[in-house]
Amino acid sequence: MIQSMNEFFQKDIISVRDFDKQKLESIFDATNKIIKLKPNDRREIGRGKTLGYLFYEPSTRTRLSFEAAIASIGGTSIGISNISSSSTQKGESLADTVRIMSIYSDVLVLRHPLDGSSRFAAEISEKSVINGGSGTEEHPTQAIQDLFTIKKEKNKIDGLKIGIVGDLKYGRTVYSLLSALSYYDVDVHLISPESLKIRTDSTYEIKKRFSFTESTDLEEYIDDLDVVYVTRIQKERFPDEEEYIKVKGSYVIGLDITKKMKDDAIILHPLPRLDEISAEVDNTKQAKYFKQAEYGMYTRAALLGLILNEKGF
Amino acid sequence: MIQSMNEFFQKDIISVRDFDKQKLESIFDATNKIIKLKPNDRREIGRGKTLGYLFYEPSTRTRLSFEAAIASIGGTSIGISNISSSSTQKGESLADTVRIMSIYSDVLVLRHPLDGSSRFAAEISEKSVINGGSGTEEHPTQAIQDLFTIKKEKNKIDGLKIGIVGDLKYGRTVYSLLSALSYYDVDVHLISPESLKIRTDSTYEIKKRFSFTESTDLEEYIDDLDVVYVTRIQKERFPDEEEYIKVKGSYVIGLDITKKMKDDAIILHPLPRLDEISAEVDNTKQAKYFKQAEYGMYTRAALLGLILNEKGF
Amino acid sequence: MIQSMNEFFQKDIISVRDFDKQKLESIFDATNKIIKLKPNDRREIGRGKTLGYLFYEPSTRTRLSFEAAIASIGGTSIGISNISSSSTQKGESLADTVRIMSIYSDVLVLRHPLDGSSRFAAEISEKSVINGGSGTEEHPTQAIQDLFTIKKEKNKIDGLKIGIVGDLKYGRTVYSLLSALSYYDVDVHLISPESLKIRTDSTYEIKKRFSFTESTDLEEYIDDLDVVYVTRIQKERFPDEEEYIKVKGSYVIGLDITKKMKDDAIILHPLPRLDEISAEVDNTKQAKYFKQAEYGMYTRAALLGLILNEKGF
Repeated sequence: MIQSMNEFFQKDIISVRDFDKQKLESIFDATNKIIKLKPNDRREIGRGKTLGYLFYEPSTRTRLSFEAAIASIGGTSIGISNISSSSTQKGESLADTVRIMSIYSDVLVLRHPLDGSSRFAAEISEKSVINGGSGTEEHPTQAIQDLFTIKKEKNKIDGLKIGIVGDLKYGRTVYSLLSALSYYDVDVHLISPESLKIRTDSTYEIKKRFSFTESTDLEEYIDDLDVVYVTRIQKERFPDEEEYIKVKGSYVIGLDITKKMKDDAIILHPLPRLDEISAEVDNTKQAKYFKQAEYGMYTRAALLGLILNEKGF
Repeated sequence: MIQSMNEFFQKDIISVRDFDKQKLESIFDATNKIIKLKPNDRREIGRGKTLGYLFYEPSTRTRLSFEAAIASIGGTSIGISNISSSSTQKGESLADTVRIMSIYSDVLVLRHPLDGSSRFAAEISEKSVINGGSGTEEHPTQAIQDLFTIKKEKNKIDGLKIGIVGDLKYGRTVYSLLSALSYYDVDVHLISPESLKIRTDSTYEIKKRFSFTESTDLEEYIDDLDVVYVTRIQKERFPDEEEYIKVKGSYVIGLDITKKMKDDAIILHPLPRLDEISAEVDNTKQAKYFKQAEYGMYTRAALLGLILNEKGF
Repeated sequence: MIQSMNEFFQKDIISVRDFDKQKLESIFDATNKIIKLKPNDRREIGRGKTLGYLFYEPSTRTRLSFEAAIASIGGTSIGISNISSSSTQKGESLADTVRIMSIYSDVLVLRHPLDGSSRFAAEISEKSVINGGSGTEEHPTQAIQDLFTIKKEKNKIDGLKIGIVGDLKYGRTVYSLLSALSYYDVDVHLISPESLKIRTDSTYEIKKRFSFTESTDLEEYIDDLDVVYVTRIQKERFPDEEEYIKVKGSYVIGLDITKKMKDDAIILHPLPRLDEISAEVDNTKQAKYFKQAEYGMYTRAALLGLILNEKGF
């Protein structure tokens, strides 16, 4: 199907909400193809193409993942990784910066603190815009990476029991992940301190499509989960430190927790992590967060390849 | 002519004053050739070549334009975009930094606050030096880009009536543009607040070659101009804020102004802009400043191609 | 030998102490091969490979040298040159940063202020780690560059009289250089102010393998030396300024000194320099520090080529 028609050609990637199951599966297929290709063949996919990136928030991980992805398919990247050294110091508007960058490159990646920034950029840009994280709710390429990892490591997504642990209030990753999961038939269990529970306004739409349970106790269902998706809990997000100290320990994945988990369960994390997963867990067979980072490079390479090539690759 | 002899091979590009009409036209011809080439053929021109950049002043626009240019002809770029993170913190001289960078690369781009810095660098460098903006008067690749845009959009330069609007005192772009225009037979009209008029010391030489008129009123001749070149007016440049507020509004190009302009007149701007051109103007057919940015990438690619290839391309 | 077996394939480059004479000579042979190759052939060596760099200390020189090196063999580079804009701001551990970067790239370069950081990184990394300078004692690629320069310019290393001048206490370059020289039969003379003498704890092992003399007088043996290796003396390193002023002038290489040197002696410097070598010396035939910078790019390209290719190149 990818051969004869490619629905992503010259399209923008703004929000997981614009996707559906079939679109996600197309990207997964393309990613599997990327992984199987020999490096020399892989580099034909984006040969001579230029990715332009505009990072209005620091994000080394996402920037390097895209830079590695475009390099792996034979292209190159230029951009601004740090707004403070850019023309915007001179007061240039986002619109102008996007327009110029879209002249210099074949595809654009934008990371921006404001909701709606990528959709706005896409209207202005001459080239496809990929949302590299915006506002509090959207990080579509992270969600694609997360779901690809689940499918690759568990051989399926439908039917899985998925726990999402940590700061569910502020992390944009979680909202994109939930949106993506809503296209599948999964059991989602949200685990967080009371003060970091998911925002109900943001999940209104998701709730219409699938239900999830919530609790504050990590261990309650831990032995039943197929996927444990861990996020950072940031101290500064707590109204008072007392409360932080109270919950802090409850959300650390250590060997004690992994032993309670199913043998074939997997632990994911968007990274960077602080101490919410102990280093000792890295060597367990459940630890898949580094694999997840690797898949992130391949899913981005696949997405770029689809956007840049009319008939796919 | 480009085929059999290429006068730019391994030469420095320091000042528009070193040029003449024939040299400018050679670059325009090469630029038209670049534009027509298929991407694969274009990438043969600079295949495997490395552009080294040294930016002692921030300039995202110029840096990215050069990075996109060298990428488009198959080369790569390395360099320092932000002096604060460089060896010069350890007190290294410009001479040493230039010499080393010229060892690492095939062609050098220097942006530096001091007049004469590029000429100095060219004496030291083992490779060609391109002035990416120096001091208050030189920005030759911007002037080339500007004239190419005029020629491309108006089909000629000789005989045109060109208005230059805004801060004519501090912008290096204007001095380079005037120098370049002095090789042509044009009518130049300078429009600026009294306190931001062109510096007479800097135009002494230009005045010997062609005359220009000056006024403070944007609208006076607006219906007669073929080209309206707008520059930023920076608030901090005014001796007192009162005066700034007084003139501010008079130099904003809005739809009211474009309607008074000739239908086939063009509006240019070196960018970034603040509010001296209203966003509503972007969609008029006179607005050519984004096209100008695109041509900037191509003129730089052409220049690099000529410098790097003995027989041109 | 390089053709049939390459001992550097997928190996780490952590410390000169892990080397021996034969290993150094292998790299020198590979470097000579790199220099002789035509650019097109050279670019086959690292075609499509990605170098990932992590710089926890600023070092424009070393970073650009590696970037130029990987570009010269057809590869590309991605990385973090300035820790302050990276994920480590979010508190990520060195271990995690290294692991992720090793997923994104084919070979890793790490610059870090702590002793042992590179060896630690190598244990974690999925790809080869090259120490780009760590702690106070290790900078192996600088030492390789230094010895290659000596061999190339003097046609031998054994039998030479080598003076090392300046700050011998704090510069990591000196310790790596001494370790590398200990594999050869050389006469080493250390020249420094009393307060910047070499640290005896660090040279304990070296002293077992070869002896060196020490003095505070630059001119004493200057007419007898084949190589004069100069390092920066940093004012802030002195216990009091009085002492700095006292010794400052004594360690400046000017034309007066070069005239006392042998005609075929060579002057080296790891760069950047301040005023410890006068600019007037740059044009003497003894000045080889810029040549040394050039060789640095080639030795790094050779090392990368050996690490990346099973059978060498």
